[in-house]
Amino acid sequence: MARIGIIGSKGRMGQALASAIEAAGHEHSGGVDQGEQPGPLASRSDVLVDFSAPQALGANLAAARVPGIPLVIGTTGLGAEHHALIDEAAGAIPVLQTGNTSLGVTLLAYLVQEAASRLGPEWDIEIVEMHHRMKVDAPSGTALLLGEAAARGRGIELASHSESGRDGHTGARADGAIGFAALRGGTVAGDHSVIFAGSQERLRLSHQAEDRAIFATGAVHAADWLIGREPGRYSMQDVLAL
Amino acid sequence: MARIGIIGSKGRMGQALASAIEAAGHEHSGGVDQGEQPGPLASRSDVLVDFSAPQALGANLAAARVPGIPLVIGTTGLGAEHHALIDEAAGAIPVLQTGNTSLGVTLLAYLVQEAASRLGPEWDIEIVEMHHRMKVDAPSGTALLLGEAAARGRGIELASHSESGRDGHTGARADGAIGFAALRGGTVAGDHSVIFAGSQERLRLSHQAEDRAIFATGAVHAADWLIGREPGRYSMQDVLAL
Amino acid sequence: MARIGIIGSKGRMGQALASAIEAAGHEHSGGVDQGEQPGPLASRSDVLVDFSAPQALGANLAAARVPGIPLVIGTTGLGAEHHALIDEAAGAIPVLQTGNTSLGVTLLAYLVQEAASRLGPEWDIEIVEMHHRMKVDAPSGTALLLGEAAARGRGIELASHSESGRDGHTGARADGAIGFAALRGGTVAGDHSVIFAGSQERLRLSHQAEDRAIFATGAVHAADWLIGREPGRYSMQDVLAL
Amino acid sequence: MARIGIIGSKGRMGQALASAIEAAGHEHSGGVDQGEQPGPLASRSDVLVDFSAPQALGANLAAARVPGIPLVIGTTGLGAEHHALIDEAAGAIPVLQTGNTSLGVTLLAYLVQEAASRLGPEWDIEIVEMHHRMKVDAPSGTALLLGEAAARGRGIELASHSESGRDGHTGARADGAIGFAALRGGTVAGDHSVIFAGSQERLRLSHQAEDRAIFATGAVHAADWLIGREPGRYSMQDVLAL
Repeated sequence: MARIGIIGSKGRMGQALASAIEAAGHEHSGGVDQGEQPGPLASRSDVLVDFSAPQALGANLAAARVPGIPLVIGTTGLGAEHHALIDEAAGAIPVLQTGNTSLGVTLLAYLVQEAASRLGPEWDIEIVEMHHRMKVDAPSGTALLLGEAAARGRGIELASHSESGRDGHTGARADGAIGFAALRGGTVAGDHSVIFAGSQERLRLSHQAEDRAIFATGAVHAADWLIGREPGRYSMQDVLAL
Repeated sequence: MARIGIIGSKGRMGQALASAIEAAGHEHSGGVDQGEQPGPLASRSDVLVDFSAPQALGANLAAARVPGIPLVIGTTGLGAEHHALIDEAAGAIPVLQTGNTSLGVTLLAYLVQEAASRLGPEWDIEIVEMHHRMKVDAPSGTALLLGEAAARGRGIELASHSESGRDGHTGARADGAIGFAALRGGTVAGDHSVIFAGSQERLRLSHQAEDRAIFATGAVHAADWLIGREPGRYSMQDVLAL
Repeated sequence: MARIGIIGSKGRMGQALASAIEAAGHEHSGGVDQGEQPGPLASRSDVLVDFSAPQALGANLAAARVPGIPLVIGTTGLGAEHHALIDEAAGAIPVLQTGNTSLGVTLLAYLVQEAASRLGPEWDIEIVEMHHRMKVDAPSGTALLLGEAAARGRGIELASHSESGRDGHTGARADGAIGFAALRGGTVAGDHSVIFAGSQERLRLSHQAEDRAIFATGAVHAADWLIGREPGRYSMQDVLAL
Repeated sequence: MARIGIIGSKGRMGQALASAIEAAGHEHSGGVDQGEQPGPLASRSDVLVDFSAPQALGANLAAARVPGIPLVIGTTGLGAEHHALIDEAAGAIPVLQTGNTSLGVTLLAYLVQEAASRLGPEWDIEIVEMHHRMKVDAPSGTALLLGEAAARGRGIELASHSESGRDGHTGARADGAIGFAALRGGTVAGDHSVIFAGSQERLRLSHQAEDRAIFATGAVHAADWLIGREPGRYSMQDVLAL
């Protein structure tokens, strides 16, 4: 059982983290939000999870370094200056930074890269995702992350091979393209499938989120894993030993 | 066992029809193609199946009328003048004209219309299809046919509610939209799914063609069904008593 | 906006109903549970929803009859004597009794029956469901309900055509069988698919529950629909005009 | 372009191989069947593919060794004595022996093993397959092969963790079980899915064969790959560099 503290405790993710900590049998050592100092929280925690804001990152890293505890960073919108701060702190404490804390998506991206690196370019790659009706962009960030994994596996650039939004007279599929399609509707938390379509056979690698709570669950899993590691910078791939 | 003759016997569909006639235990009474007169074939057949060309339609209808046998018409590209010819012949013989001879797709369209007429507009409708890499247009004609069925069931016009080719910053889904997405790859004969996404639940109605031969199989089934019917104009819906 | 009262308010379903009433924009007029009289609740409600216990049914029906308001009954474990009570009350007030309040499942059962009645027995019917790891029986009650719908559509008895739990040397599939398969794992709220497998083509009709809350949502929808109806006994099919 | 010879040329697989050799742009250097000597065929081929019978294996290996060409062995029903013959010949020529020549299934098994080795035992593993109505056993050999891959990845024995044919009062799912379910119907060439069901999320790794021809295609691909390799014993995994 670990003592896990939350930075950014009042947001939707902060509340989801509190539930996930309890559900996993850990101790919720408390939370801080805008304007509160993370120092006291750090001193009574084994690990901190930060889903706050980029401008708070420096103070959060500093707070973790005092007692020398690890930090999981799920904050989005980080720039080069934030990554430099993380790299520097990683010389002293274990830091895991990620844009997607789902274990299932992390593993799927790895499997997609593996498959793409083994199958020849005659296997057409298509990525289809479905999300709730309120989502405002397409394809989803996770679909693009999977597309990057496929492109990396195949040794190509995604940007120059992406084919999205097919409509009308498209002509035959471009050789080597990675296609994207987006479905929207209802309350779908997030479905993603990567299809490798060969001659007379198809491979389909899919992930389905039943609830957005999985992102909190994955962050807590990562936090627990990070305790006791050597100082350094880690990713979700490391948690799964990928 | 029926004696079934093929008009347009040398094309890919004509050959598929010959196999389908045999596979169904019927007698293949022969075939004619470009420049050959269908009269003798009509006189030794119980029914004719026509997958030839619009300009041959008049002669084919006339040939079927002599012995008074039924005619299944799967020829595409028909105009108003051809439909007038069919209507006129249907006063004397049974004629079934259709743009899609698959029994499964015919039934799926009916089920989609039923579902759309029962579920309120808060159920978002999405149609996704996958076809082989050589297909040059999107969405598929069958996807549009399913979209028409959904719109009819809901009592709206498809043209003003269709949402296709989502890409980039799309904004939230438009209320009442019918969305389309197209996947392309490999040798897929044709997959179609219509999704009704409600609050916390989804209904998915799908058809999968394992082989393009199903269109020939469906045409032969329709031909057998048409024998002995009253003169009149029929559709695939009638074959399934929809 | 309707005033909806809950009988059996403290159980898991009672709490889910309270949330569903609010989410649908209705007024939650209160709840009663074991040992509490439903009379006062009935007098300040437009409709009651009862997910309590069979032995409370008589008092609940009587309470609804005083102000003459409708009653939705989702209580399970009803016997012939309870159905007799319902039939009698239905002479005075609208009563809707059902074992499954999901709109999606209700519609799916209807579509399955329609499909089975149109497709010949050469289309093999398979039903596969997946539920969370704690479920103790197989196939699920809903899978059996779908099997009944398929059998009814085809005009056969399910009991004498059911094929479940295939394992080992099974021999070829029995003609006309309706097959069942059960998957168990994780936290799956409930997936059901009915497959019609023909020659070279397949139809698949599926329902996916993202959350068990849909049963509360469906009950609230039915309650709202029931207000102002003629006295009589209704089913979920009536709500969807099936 | 390779010259590929077929041993067992008159069976269904032999004929499928001839088509696959042509489709892949190779030269079909001829075939032999029961009672015919493979020597002359070997001398005019770059590689041989053997889908004949175990008792012919010795002669086939000997024939390949004379000109020193590689041999792909897809013959089923091999015993320890046949494997010893293969091992001995592999000292002189490249030999690839396998029970499943599909590239997609080979890759899927690898991905399943990878996933199982990374995900903890709290992820429930389920394997579901669908095959045509004539198949007489369940689960399919390929489903078992996938189950073995999952068990290997997780470090357990499949035999003591397999759960197949759920029906009736099963009780909750056993911890660590690997479940199997079999669907039968129509003309399905072979669908396989391995599901990893975690808390609120699911991973699904699937393969779909559109046509049994893929086994011939995969064998030809393997044959082409085998030309010019060092003497030794190879598997389909080697072809995909797994």
